Amino acid sequence: MTKELSYPLIALNFKVYLEAIGENAIKLSRIAEEVSKEYGVCVMVAPPPLDLAQVVKEVEIPVFSQHVDPYKPGSHTGSIIAEEVKAVGASGSIVNHSEHRLRLADIGMVLERLRETGLTALLCTDTVETTKAGAALSPEILAIEPPELIGTGIPVSKAKPEVVTGAVEAVKRINPRVHVLCGAGISTGDDVAKAIELGTEGVLLASAYVKAKDPKKLLSGMAEAALKAWERR
Amino acid sequence: MTKELSYPLIALNFKVYLEAIGENAIKLSRIAEEVSKEYGVCVMVAPPPLDLAQVVKEVEIPVFSQHVDPYKPGSHTGSIIAEEVKAVGASGSIVNHSEHRLRLADIGMVLERLRETGLTALLCTDTVETTKAGAALSPEILAIEPPELIGTGIPVSKAKPEVVTGAVEAVKRINPRVHVLCGAGISTGDDVAKAIELGTEGVLLASAYVKAKDPKKLLSGMAEAALKAWERR
Amino acid sequence: MTKELSYPLIALNFKVYLEAIGENAIKLSRIAEEVSKEYGVCVMVAPPPLDLAQVVKEVEIPVFSQHVDPYKPGSHTGSIIAEEVKAVGASGSIVNHSEHRLRLADIGMVLERLRETGLTALLCTDTVETTKAGAALSPEILAIEPPELIGTGIPVSKAKPEVVTGAVEAVKRINPRVHVLCGAGISTGDDVAKAIELGTEGVLLASAYVKAKDPKKLLSGMAEAALKAWERR
Amino acid sequence: MTKELSYPLIALNFKVYLEAIGENAIKLSRIAEEVSKEYGVCVMVAPPPLDLAQVVKEVEIPVFSQHVDPYKPGSHTGSIIAEEVKAVGASGSIVNHSEHRLRLADIGMVLERLRETGLTALLCTDTVETTKAGAALSPEILAIEPPELIGTGIPVSKAKPEVVTGAVEAVKRINPRVHVLCGAGISTGDDVAKAIELGTEGVLLASAYVKAKDPKKLLSGMAEAALKAWERR
Repeated sequence: MTKELSYPLIALNFKVYLEAIGENAIKLSRIAEEVSKEYGVCVMVAPPPLDLAQVVKEVEIPVFSQHVDPYKPGSHTGSIIAEEVKAVGASGSIVNHSEHRLRLADIGMVLERLRETGLTALLCTDTVETTKAGAALSPEILAIEPPELIGTGIPVSKAKPEVVTGAVEAVKRINPRVHVLCGAGISTGDDVAKAIELGTEGVLLASAYVKAKDPKKLLSGMAEAALKAWERR
Repeated sequence: MTKELSYPLIALNFKVYLEAIGENAIKLSRIAEEVSKEYGVCVMVAPPPLDLAQVVKEVEIPVFSQHVDPYKPGSHTGSIIAEEVKAVGASGSIVNHSEHRLRLADIGMVLERLRETGLTALLCTDTVETTKAGAALSPEILAIEPPELIGTGIPVSKAKPEVVTGAVEAVKRINPRVHVLCGAGISTGDDVAKAIELGTEGVLLASAYVKAKDPKKLLSGMAEAALKAWERR
Repeated sequence: MTKELSYPLIALNFKVYLEAIGENAIKLSRIAEEVSKEYGVCVMVAPPPLDLAQVVKEVEIPVFSQHVDPYKPGSHTGSIIAEEVKAVGASGSIVNHSEHRLRLADIGMVLERLRETGLTALLCTDTVETTKAGAALSPEILAIEPPELIGTGIPVSKAKPEVVTGAVEAVKRINPRVHVLCGAGISTGDDVAKAIELGTEGVLLASAYVKAKDPKKLLSGMAEAALKAWERR
Repeated sequence: MTKELSYPLIALNFKVYLEAIGENAIKLSRIAEEVSKEYGVCVMVAPPPLDLAQVVKEVEIPVFSQHVDPYKPGSHTGSIIAEEVKAVGASGSIVNHSEHRLRLADIGMVLERLRETGLTALLCTDTVETTKAGAALSPEILAIEPPELIGTGIPVSKAKPEVVTGAVEAVKRINPRVHVLCGAGISTGDDVAKAIELGTEGVLLASAYVKAKDPKKLLSGMAEAALKAWERR
């Protein structure tokens, strides 16, 4: 196992669900580590902010912050800054999640801060248009998540496949080095397979994993589906 | 004279300076119209919000809103929406000015609202990176304004010419139909000429015009310089 | 008729409904003026931002802005400032509407700006707790609107009478000079009567008036109910 | 030593200064604990977010979060919520710091969230007017910090003593159970003494401690001055 990112990638956003706070953050991260090890598929976890440091110590998979503010170290109160994310040993950060939207200028600054501190950026966008803008900003990873589908269990890969393929094509044209993930509504191995078939290199999901009755079973199914779809590409 | 945009373009943001409110908004807009007519150079004005409707009635040059919110008509209070900007007869809107930054997702929505209502978007960005993102969003016009230079009288074209040329090149590569303006610190005819020499199609300025002792003289000098630089291209 | 405020007060927020933009803003304001004249009840209108100046010219009733930003005149783009609201002849402004929430420090600044420019503040709050805070800030008028009821047609006076009476009592204790209005879900004369019976001095409503099939009939019924309830106090 | 709050109180906001991240957060917190023990004066520390959990484990003094978002556990990304602050063992949270201003409605919600989770609220305000509003919201502690003095080394207790006394009086009138601290520009034992003489029950400071050449010496001087001033009351 390793903290390095590889593809296909299953990225797990724990949000601040009660099921993902404190001991649960550790438990859900350990399961992710186990599945990653078993299947040889990269699984990344993004625990709630105050559990980030502890999770990093507990598992040997990539751990991300859920958010970073566009500030340098200094006179800012209650902000999560890149230097601190780095200091606790995390690998990168989600940026501009639909539940934590940033101003364009601030996204520019956050990406710069992450680059300077050696952290990986996973930038979220919502439409083909903003995905183009996102690609132009050159994050390592870009996740397209139409916000109307988040938490619905209706995968964007099924509800709006043209958004996914449109986003993938646009990104390849503007910056082919950007890895594209598919988010919003991903809740089964089938959804993961479909996402990869549409040209993405993985998925970003949250509630389906955090609230699963059997998170290990769910994630194992996803890892298996991801591998198979990946081989068929 | 006409409400159509053409290039080179001198865009005047009146902000909410006391010198640009009420009767002053009309006066400064009429001077802009006169200079535009005299020199045959397109001059656009963006008066304070509550004076927008009246200014549109008074002059035959393009009039822009300074801002538009990312909403459709409906249950929103105190917002400036595209439909109302259109209804009062304005030609377009400044979007994401450094004094009114928007979230990336909202910029996407605002540009869509402007397109749907037949309004022209003048999108502001601050760095070469965010200018690339801006170009990917396909506004008609893009103004690059490093915020640290706004209101300083130090033109970006002199202080950071590489930002301007970098932005122009990046825009041409990503979307060559986008017109690039140079903002921040433009205060003389020389600054305007220099901006056009660096590859832009005009300038966006505010305090230098609004607070000029003799706005007509200043704007005439800028119009003349713009024309000469434009011919040399 | 007069631009002076008196009580009971019926305050009409036009929001940016399509039915309230441009000519419709004038039409709905004229109806408000007619009803106000006919019944001798004060009716205030808050038209969409870009129609504010024109509406002020057309009617002899109090006209309010829907929002004011916490800035002095100067280098601010796309902001609505107190000086401009005053310059177009409006009487005051709604502050902190649930669709345009402000930070506490900014509410403090906006109220100061309104006082300095001779404008009347109608501050919106959402709970008994924030209403206490609102009263401590000494606006002329305070409207309590539980946001979950806005636009529902379920009046707060019926759904949560204890919120209204709690707010009225708290305000009287902290600052008895503040006039309390009842907002959210007000859609009939009965709702208006009930609001006044609970101790308020009027109502703030939006969609019920703007989207009424017969706005004059609706408002007349409200004016009549307001007067009767007022006499019974 | 104890995690209970008592007065006089010296509250130390570490912000996200480089000097206060990671190991430094622990070190500065241990010094605070030592001084607290030695002088019997309550010292509270608010470390950077990602270091909060670790600091709580290391010291036996009250530890606060620098910020809390107005959300319940659930579908929120990158937010700091009361339940997680409680779960890591912290005692409370700073709310509405001038570098993290909240909307009035959100302050209402945050205070409710803190009460429900058994955490103590330290609410920051900036003027006598917003301090009144703050007092009406009934936080346990209220810190008045005119933002123009933060980080200047000019104590509000000297620059604007009338703001401090005005705030203290207003708070006592509206809610006498609220403890008032004095913030902004506190950098010496004298400043602490002066703040207490003006009627406050302690101070909130940041850079003076975090960036002190000898933090222990500085804090010891403050603790001593606080005790003496407290006895003279």
